[in-house]
Amino acid sequence: MVNAQDILSLCKRRGFLYPSFEIYGGVAGMYDYGPLGTALKNNIIDMWRRLYTLGEGFIEIDSETIGPEAVFKASGHVDEFADKMVKCKVCDEPYRADHLVDDKHPNAGALNEEELDKLIRENGVVCPACGGELSTVEEFNLMFKTIIGPGSGRVGYMRPETAQGIFVNFPHLYRYNREKLPLGVIQVGRGYRNEISPRQGVIRLREFNMMECELFVDPEDKSWPRFNNIKDDILRLLTNDGRELEISVGDAVAQGIICNEVLAYFLWLTQEFLEAIGVDGDRLRFRQHEKAEMAHYAADCWDAESLLSYGWTEIVGIADRGCWDLSRHIRFSGADMTAFKRFDKPKEVEKDSIKPRYDRLGPAYKSRAGKIGKIMEAADPATIQNGTLTIEVDGEMISLGSELFEVVRVKEKISGEKVIPHVIEPSHGLDRITYTVLEHVYTQREGQTLMKFPPAVAPIKIGVFPLMARDGLDEVAMKIEENLRLGGIETYYDDSGSIGRRYARMDEIGTPWCLTVDYQSLEDGTVTLRERDTTKQIRIPYAGIFNVVHEALCGEDLSAFEVASE
Amino acid sequence: MVNAQDILSLCKRRGFLYPSFEIYGGVAGMYDYGPLGTALKNNIIDMWRRLYTLGEGFIEIDSETIGPEAVFKASGHVDEFADKMVKCKVCDEPYRADHLVDDKHPNAGALNEEELDKLIRENGVVCPACGGELSTVEEFNLMFKTIIGPGSGRVGYMRPETAQGIFVNFPHLYRYNREKLPLGVIQVGRGYRNEISPRQGVIRLREFNMMECELFVDPEDKSWPRFNNIKDDILRLLTNDGRELEISVGDAVAQGIICNEVLAYFLWLTQEFLEAIGVDGDRLRFRQHEKAEMAHYAADCWDAESLLSYGWTEIVGIADRGCWDLSRHIRFSGADMTAFKRFDKPKEVEKDSIKPRYDRLGPAYKSRAGKIGKIMEAADPATIQNGTLTIEVDGEMISLGSELFEVVRVKEKISGEKVIPHVIEPSHGLDRITYTVLEHVYTQREGQTLMKFPPAVAPIKIGVFPLMARDGLDEVAMKIEENLRLGGIETYYDDSGSIGRRYARMDEIGTPWCLTVDYQSLEDGTVTLRERDTTKQIRIPYAGIFNVVHEALCGEDLSAFEVASE
Repeated sequence: MVNAQDILSLCKRRGFLYPSFEIYGGVAGMYDYGPLGTALKNNIIDMWRRLYTLGEGFIEIDSETIGPEAVFKASGHVDEFADKMVKCKVCDEPYRADHLVDDKHPNAGALNEEELDKLIRENGVVCPACGGELSTVEEFNLMFKTIIGPGSGRVGYMRPETAQGIFVNFPHLYRYNREKLPLGVIQVGRGYRNEISPRQGVIRLREFNMMECELFVDPEDKSWPRFNNIKDDILRLLTNDGRELEISVGDAVAQGIICNEVLAYFLWLTQEFLEAIGVDGDRLRFRQHEKAEMAHYAADCWDAESLLSYGWTEIVGIADRGCWDLSRHIRFSGADMTAFKRFDKPKEVEKDSIKPRYDRLGPAYKSRAGKIGKIMEAADPATIQNGTLTIEVDGEMISLGSELFEVVRVKEKISGEKVIPHVIEPSHGLDRITYTVLEHVYTQREGQTLMKFPPAVAPIKIGVFPLMARDGLDEVAMKIEENLRLGGIETYYDDSGSIGRRYARMDEIGTPWCLTVDYQSLEDGTVTLRERDTTKQIRIPYAGIFNVVHEALCGEDLSAFEVASE
Repeated sequence: MVNAQDILSLCKRRGFLYPSFEIYGGVAGMYDYGPLGTALKNNIIDMWRRLYTLGEGFIEIDSETIGPEAVFKASGHVDEFADKMVKCKVCDEPYRADHLVDDKHPNAGALNEEELDKLIRENGVVCPACGGELSTVEEFNLMFKTIIGPGSGRVGYMRPETAQGIFVNFPHLYRYNREKLPLGVIQVGRGYRNEISPRQGVIRLREFNMMECELFVDPEDKSWPRFNNIKDDILRLLTNDGRELEISVGDAVAQGIICNEVLAYFLWLTQEFLEAIGVDGDRLRFRQHEKAEMAHYAADCWDAESLLSYGWTEIVGIADRGCWDLSRHIRFSGADMTAFKRFDKPKEVEKDSIKPRYDRLGPAYKSRAGKIGKIMEAADPATIQNGTLTIEVDGEMISLGSELFEVVRVKEKISGEKVIPHVIEPSHGLDRITYTVLEHVYTQREGQTLMKFPPAVAPIKIGVFPLMARDGLDEVAMKIEENLRLGGIETYYDDSGSIGRRYARMDEIGTPWCLTVDYQSLEDGTVTLRERDTTKQIRIPYAGIFNVVHEALCGEDLSAFEVASE
């Protein structure tokens, strides 16, 4: 199996990933994308964005990465986005407490401070670096904190996920969607997590890239229009009652394994997307969260996991979050974040209503009686306690005995009702996905590295070589390279070393095709086109080369373009 | 002239821009991009990226937004990225000191603390909000500060520009480019500036988007291969000696107005880019920095300024930064950030060299004499002071009198030399550019708003309408809409209100074309295509609609596709 060190070393050598700030000694948990990595990541983002916006008709927003404290109070991150930490009393090195006792407990991540402390003491765990005694376990909040504005200003945090930017904009976005559900919103951007002691390459980053989708749906309608088209496709599921299944999307819903159609559809879409960008289907599965692991508000939650050299690793989380997110923001902001669900036809409903006895209110409250009566009429009969109704009038709380009102049954026509939309969230860890692609396309051929990127995500589409950098071969090659590039195709011009070495260099960065201009090209206007995975070479006229590469990118078989060699 | 409030209100109403965190009262200087704004911004990024990567053959990277203190010590931001601030002693409101005395001094931004203090006292300036007395002026560093890792951790800052991420990676990127200059590197991403008191909509943001290019060139060769192709094009220049010129790129360089070809080329490219995305050429100029305003290390610096309702506003800065950036990082990190400039043929040079007198070293230093001699041979004769050479041997400083060595003239063959590349930096303020496009394409027609986006940047390319949402018209329209969308063209389906109202809605968000399915469509398979800017309507067959829109996006005249109405 491939080794993470091989991948990371290839990544650094060839320009996919660089450890950040290396000239200043680096910072743990931070990586920069080099030229090839950036191109690869951009191609992945493009495919995802098109799938969601053009494919599903969703909208995209781009919200701020710094947020004020109120937002993360509401989201729960201020109170709960924390890891358990210990520090070495001797060398001061910090550690995640659960990681130190991973081998001493089946689920160390779920333990509280006391339990972790006990486990550390009982097992005599010491500092892995220096053998020093460890501190007691404490919570460490994982948000990067800052101050917005001058002086003591306003506390702000770097967002731990892009999702909150979508939630807080829900009223705007619902209006944009002309007050209709479902409403699908995506966002691509940075998230931040101030890890205690990050290791594992780009799997655990302090600054990472996410592609998130928040799909707002009618709580009572979790069907999905395109579900029928895909219901026979197969998913590989690991359920939280311990079963490992290969089952059709339709059966998984029918048997209650996945809780509803829309959630199942997005498991399917995630699989489609991942396989299209180069994730190996045989190293991909969906693992259902344990009941204990699932957020208490989530109806169901599945992680897309890829098999990496680090083991099975979460790369996408797909959850039915119920009404949790919007409810919290309603509670903390007071804003109306409901959707109005119009009935097919207006409904007549009966309800209790408070009817003030103005004949008694008048003598009791004089000139204020009218105002008090109005407020009583609007009050909810459910708030009457022991026969007494308490209302607020001009800031003053007034208690009214049952002699001052009646509760009557009234009929009312209503055209719809307010509901808090439920949220289906497919949340993609872009760096882990990109890394998975790197591991899964990595192969060796005759002792040399070959990266089998699907052409659509390959950073460079075609290498262009003159056989020799002279005799006009270079001029023809440069002209071809420029034409392809200006037409929108990423190229790499290389005129140094043997053609074999140039092929090897292109194989190592996963370039699907290479084109060589040789002496025959000057005579008959043809060039050699070499295909990465088969190493097959054909001769084609270079006049129509742009169309050929374009067709190849669309999956066309190139042999159709072959001309007989003279 | 257009009013910024009109633009911002349109932006909020239609979904281009939303004030961030509005449900929590908002945060000054923060805006989110709504669905249309995000699409517009992404289209602008795409065009810029293609221009630089595919057009110029530059590479792109994506580096971290949080950086350790060392990086910003080197860049100068820790010491110098600050504004002068005063606070109201009564209401505690902070202000930029120079903004409060803008009308009292021709160049308040250039004054130091004492000068600003004096100006405030002498003019009796008080708090604009409450009339309270103002504090003395102090410096406020504009970087958002945070802590990387647990505890007192490591100080980090949100980057104030993307550029440093490119500079610190120079050794990697130079290797990626196979150790050749010029090397052009771009980056698109967030920058942060903790403004004291931001106003002016999206012109002064605390979190903003940048598109930066750092072009590393040979210090002695600032020519540019494609310069000749564009040297007759005209630029509008405002020079720092007060001249306003319309002059060809070639003449501007020949007359020494712009200091070199490569800088001039990127002024030209910036103009090409801005006009292509919808910036009005008549409201665009390049202003040369005043000598006093220019960074001391910059050889020349020009701002592309657009005329907005706020006045002339910098949207792009294009500077020849000399060797400043790499020199600073060499000094602070000790890393080798030079390029190796190979001579056409190896040069023979004469130089001074230290020749140890081993006959005297031996008796003096015994067994260490050999080692000391080697270090002396490698030492630079320029470090000899008063006849004494001081060297470090195993951590010990040893001073050697002139009796122990000779300085001799030697000949050496060298194949090249190390140089610190110079940097040409076109740095784009993406939010200001996007906002400029919004103001410049904004027009009124018969009392209604019309946004004349160039089709390539328009968020929605085509509106698709059924004349009536019944009789099968809606099914045909939905099918057409889906075909266009899945083919990669952004659509908007609208079946509500009169066609006139639907056109007006699309005009207001700048959709170039609208397509209507009517009863005739069911008979002859044609639809009406309406062009935004001319309001001209033609009938075309809907079978080939995808190609028609595609051609239209490439600038094709649509009348070629018109069929005679039956």
